[in-house]
Amino acid sequence: MMIAGMRVGCEQTPDMQQQKGRVEVLAHASTILRGNASGDPSERDVYCYLPPSYDASKQRYPVIYFLSGFTGTGRMLLNYSAFEEPLDGRLDRLISSGAMPPAIVVLPDCMTRFGGSQYTNSSATGRYEDYIIDEIVPFVDEKLRTLPGRDHRGVTGKSSGGYGALRLAMRHPDVFGALGSHAGDAYFEYCYFLDFPKFVLGIQKYGGSVESFFERFQALPKKHVAFDVLNILAMAACYSPNPDAPLGIDVPVDLQTGELRDAVWRRWLDNDPVFMAPKCVGALRSMKKIFLDAGLRDDYQLQLGARILCSRFDELGVKYTYEEFDDTHMGIVYRYDRSLTELARALA
Amino acid sequence: MMIAGMRVGCEQTPDMQQQKGRVEVLAHASTILRGNASGDPSERDVYCYLPPSYDASKQRYPVIYFLSGFTGTGRMLLNYSAFEEPLDGRLDRLISSGAMPPAIVVLPDCMTRFGGSQYTNSSATGRYEDYIIDEIVPFVDEKLRTLPGRDHRGVTGKSSGGYGALRLAMRHPDVFGALGSHAGDAYFEYCYFLDFPKFVLGIQKYGGSVESFFERFQALPKKHVAFDVLNILAMAACYSPNPDAPLGIDVPVDLQTGELRDAVWRRWLDNDPVFMAPKCVGALRSMKKIFLDAGLRDDYQLQLGARILCSRFDELGVKYTYEEFDDTHMGIVYRYDRSLTELARALA
Amino acid sequence: MMIAGMRVGCEQTPDMQQQKGRVEVLAHASTILRGNASGDPSERDVYCYLPPSYDASKQRYPVIYFLSGFTGTGRMLLNYSAFEEPLDGRLDRLISSGAMPPAIVVLPDCMTRFGGSQYTNSSATGRYEDYIIDEIVPFVDEKLRTLPGRDHRGVTGKSSGGYGALRLAMRHPDVFGALGSHAGDAYFEYCYFLDFPKFVLGIQKYGGSVESFFERFQALPKKHVAFDVLNILAMAACYSPNPDAPLGIDVPVDLQTGELRDAVWRRWLDNDPVFMAPKCVGALRSMKKIFLDAGLRDDYQLQLGARILCSRFDELGVKYTYEEFDDTHMGIVYRYDRSLTELARALA
Amino acid sequence: MMIAGMRVGCEQTPDMQQQKGRVEVLAHASTILRGNASGDPSERDVYCYLPPSYDASKQRYPVIYFLSGFTGTGRMLLNYSAFEEPLDGRLDRLISSGAMPPAIVVLPDCMTRFGGSQYTNSSATGRYEDYIIDEIVPFVDEKLRTLPGRDHRGVTGKSSGGYGALRLAMRHPDVFGALGSHAGDAYFEYCYFLDFPKFVLGIQKYGGSVESFFERFQALPKKHVAFDVLNILAMAACYSPNPDAPLGIDVPVDLQTGELRDAVWRRWLDNDPVFMAPKCVGALRSMKKIFLDAGLRDDYQLQLGARILCSRFDELGVKYTYEEFDDTHMGIVYRYDRSLTELARALA
Repeated sequence: MMIAGMRVGCEQTPDMQQQKGRVEVLAHASTILRGNASGDPSERDVYCYLPPSYDASKQRYPVIYFLSGFTGTGRMLLNYSAFEEPLDGRLDRLISSGAMPPAIVVLPDCMTRFGGSQYTNSSATGRYEDYIIDEIVPFVDEKLRTLPGRDHRGVTGKSSGGYGALRLAMRHPDVFGALGSHAGDAYFEYCYFLDFPKFVLGIQKYGGSVESFFERFQALPKKHVAFDVLNILAMAACYSPNPDAPLGIDVPVDLQTGELRDAVWRRWLDNDPVFMAPKCVGALRSMKKIFLDAGLRDDYQLQLGARILCSRFDELGVKYTYEEFDDTHMGIVYRYDRSLTELARALA
Repeated sequence: MMIAGMRVGCEQTPDMQQQKGRVEVLAHASTILRGNASGDPSERDVYCYLPPSYDASKQRYPVIYFLSGFTGTGRMLLNYSAFEEPLDGRLDRLISSGAMPPAIVVLPDCMTRFGGSQYTNSSATGRYEDYIIDEIVPFVDEKLRTLPGRDHRGVTGKSSGGYGALRLAMRHPDVFGALGSHAGDAYFEYCYFLDFPKFVLGIQKYGGSVESFFERFQALPKKHVAFDVLNILAMAACYSPNPDAPLGIDVPVDLQTGELRDAVWRRWLDNDPVFMAPKCVGALRSMKKIFLDAGLRDDYQLQLGARILCSRFDELGVKYTYEEFDDTHMGIVYRYDRSLTELARALA
Repeated sequence: MMIAGMRVGCEQTPDMQQQKGRVEVLAHASTILRGNASGDPSERDVYCYLPPSYDASKQRYPVIYFLSGFTGTGRMLLNYSAFEEPLDGRLDRLISSGAMPPAIVVLPDCMTRFGGSQYTNSSATGRYEDYIIDEIVPFVDEKLRTLPGRDHRGVTGKSSGGYGALRLAMRHPDVFGALGSHAGDAYFEYCYFLDFPKFVLGIQKYGGSVESFFERFQALPKKHVAFDVLNILAMAACYSPNPDAPLGIDVPVDLQTGELRDAVWRRWLDNDPVFMAPKCVGALRSMKKIFLDAGLRDDYQLQLGARILCSRFDELGVKYTYEEFDDTHMGIVYRYDRSLTELARALA
Repeated sequence: MMIAGMRVGCEQTPDMQQQKGRVEVLAHASTILRGNASGDPSERDVYCYLPPSYDASKQRYPVIYFLSGFTGTGRMLLNYSAFEEPLDGRLDRLISSGAMPPAIVVLPDCMTRFGGSQYTNSSATGRYEDYIIDEIVPFVDEKLRTLPGRDHRGVTGKSSGGYGALRLAMRHPDVFGALGSHAGDAYFEYCYFLDFPKFVLGIQKYGGSVESFFERFQALPKKHVAFDVLNILAMAACYSPNPDAPLGIDVPVDLQTGELRDAVWRRWLDNDPVFMAPKCVGALRSMKKIFLDAGLRDDYQLQLGARILCSRFDELGVKYTYEEFDDTHMGIVYRYDRSLTELARALA
């Protein structure tokens, strides 16, 4: 199956004929996700972008895993929009122009009923970290003409996808040799804590308990109105699962007063890249490329998170490229060009 | 080609197995759009939803044309999203549950480089009204097992798509026998005029002329920041084209002071459903169903536009169903159920 | 009575000892306002700033009337605030530094129960235009050592006060010889019309009628939440009074649908400075100084109103000074320096 | 000196003639504030409301100290506004109607060049806690016919004034026997920490250092635009002064990355009523009345702060009245009725 097609409104001139790659959809049945706690599918499609030269050659290509943000899946990165390039069109352009060496780009699906997995292993959702590392990477290497090995395999993403890239590369340097993070979650004090009051007040608006909220959320005709609340609940599902708690989730605050529950919050902080970095110095130093960015006006203060992470990297002697750009957290897909080209060059 | 697939996060229980229809993509080469003024493609795909029973039967089905809003195309209505049904999934559910008689739903593409056509004939964009009426309707009737004839053919849509449905049904009662409009553009004093100051100030921010704005708009990495400005420019392209003006468009205000240009504004008002209604009484009275709605907090005051339109209908003895719901203009796809079921019943 | 006192937080250095003027409060009993329709007091205090040299000399001074904006009175201009100069402190500074020739500044009170009078004669509120012209001006000339005569008397203000200044100077060139307007109401299409939808929806929220709204408004513990609604009602009280209508006011829109009532709206437009200007060419040309300004981001688009008014002045051969500054409509008291100094110089 | 006058727009009917108290302005020269670090005046006026019966009797009255919020002074509580009662009018109404026993209400001035003192002793601002306790209380008792003694003396306020009331009563139960707090600062994690990112980004916008910010702030024509930044700086001046730091202030975050400076932050938390409460159990239990409230939609999450404080009180066996009301943090002066009446009754 191939998803492509005319893109009205994009700035194409007739002489700028791009070579077109294609999207291969690989059906995969996971053993790891089977019977996962949140009841999400274990059979999932892996969308794989193959570069323009793929079909006409026998060449092997480096691979970049592009991880979706919260509420996203790989497939959504290919959605059609009037004034915005989908990821495949972006890659066609970058590769055709020579800006980026040809690469396979893999778009996995780590969605859960809470909106995402943060690419963690969690008793509340499933073992998504293992799913990527132990199943999807070998599966892709088997099905496609990849250049196998960590020196030719990178991982990047935006927002929670950037977080996933940081997490997976820091913890699995044997699997990934380069990492990118566009406005990735970091310094949880600023990217999550600031929404805790909204979370508490939101839970109270929807019945006062985790269960009542989630039940009503699922029935909402327009779910966006409760995304701030869902987001914190989903992060708790990933960072502080507890099989004995409602929905299997320990929340980091008292649901009546909003007071911080220190022990739960500490579990969150263990997952913060800022906290993880010193424990993963070797992995970080081994990366062929670390590319980070964030918007000067990021809605979740992730530019501050990135700066704090960079200060850790400086202290640890880890090399990286960091860019700030004049924008917010939303609609910054045009930034993807940066990590894609940087990683593809490092991995080629 | 069929676009479908797992929908994580949607409220599906195993026993609620839906029958699935499929999406047929019909390639069409338009004569009418060939050489159009804004240089947009004349070869376009028509996405057609076929009901679950289509392939296994020889039955003919009523047809509903679902028109996209500004910056939308038929294809975008099928985009994948974590917590929202795409249109095909919505139709599967409505038809499987019996809420809606089976119907073919046609999703045309009337996009222009300005973001939309308002389903008008315009020297600045193209003859999109003719394109739908004279080309797409006969083409679909030829390619698919439709129940032909206005008594089995309806048109609906949201926002500019609702406007298009009002416009096409009012002006072509021989083609369409039922109409729906979710928050359709009406009473231009409130849905467009209120943005004229933003338009003027926006144009000035982008160089001060229609050409300078549009050139810079096309180069913007993130176009959303200028949508308010583009929207008014696009409406001018549709309602007040002028081959002798910059980009072929007469704008309704002085670009320096913002003062209204009365003669241009009157051309806009000629296209307002509130103004058109009295001239199309016969067409309106002949509809088997008119369904209108709008949100109580519509961002473009289209609930007021709808009420004013309803007051005209009352004066003219036109029957209709009108519903207001507690929401804004955005993210109201869940409302589509209403016009789809109402129209399908009237056209079955 | 004198209102003065320490101003902590203002940038005063010990050596920058300003001379201080004082505020004289003149009690005035109006004949014109006696028995006014909205039941507001006819006995009001007129706050008059006397320059530092006033008491020690026998000199006569030019007079500037400073008119308050909507919901304001002269007295409020003297309110104490931590980080903002009240008007008397501002005048002390301007006069002490020599930036402005000494002048008497009169702060009248034209408040009504609707929040303001727009300095009009209205059967719904009272004859405030006459009150200023026929009572307050002679009263001030009698009580204080003014330089009488239009050549030494100016009028300025902000927002509705700027409107009042435009209105009074245009209609009474025998009384005022200079005018200033900071973001004064002009081009009603942009400064009022854009709020009509909010007005209609607000009225509906508060019971659906003018009377029900106003009754509930008066009982609100925190009235700011309904100021948008009150504002339009107050303007209607000033521009389209009707003794036979509820509260004596014709509103410019249908209270159910929001549709414009053309005849009422035309009465409003008659009061628009943009419309009045061509009828008052002689008055405008006779002004010794016309000073206008508005913020580049004015919340009521009054920068556009000002530009349109300026374009009328250009057509009519009226001389003026116009400045735009990078700010909104609110908190722009620092701009008062400009009209005060310009007017005082012209009137000295 | 008396500040009073007609209040247009307030709901007064002729037969509802209120008795009027008056405002006495007592000039006080402080020894404690002399030569204070931030260069603010040591001679300040103390505004004192005297109840209607004061002048005609020899009676002694209980005293309530009403503390202003950030950027406020006692005098500002008497400002004139079209649709809002000033504090003296409010007291006239409450006492005339019998809702509140007559009381003297003292409005001190604890303003600093940073916008406030939080009623603390700080090397960066001055010893405002001592100023109130050791100078103003005895001074007022000497000048006015007070009922002296903690059983007849209470303290209340809003926002930072509510904080001040909590602080002063908790630490000086020998001086105050009742306390009120309308949306008082509490649980600094939610009322201040959430603004730290804005603070860091704001400092960077204004030159990057505490000094550069404050210098530019003082020169701003419209200071409101930087209040969020000033607020955190002012809190640091009160909670974490350091004579060796720029402006004598240790800020709680790294000014480049925004990372929390733990040692400074702990000094802040020592001042949090939630943290102070367990250390002041005796004082709290001795209060004749503790009245707390907060808005359900408080902009600084002070309803959560209040709930957490109440949970401490519950644990400690402290009695209190707590009310939540449907409003935000701003414009809630109508709530003052509650603490004033509750305290006056307890202290009568």
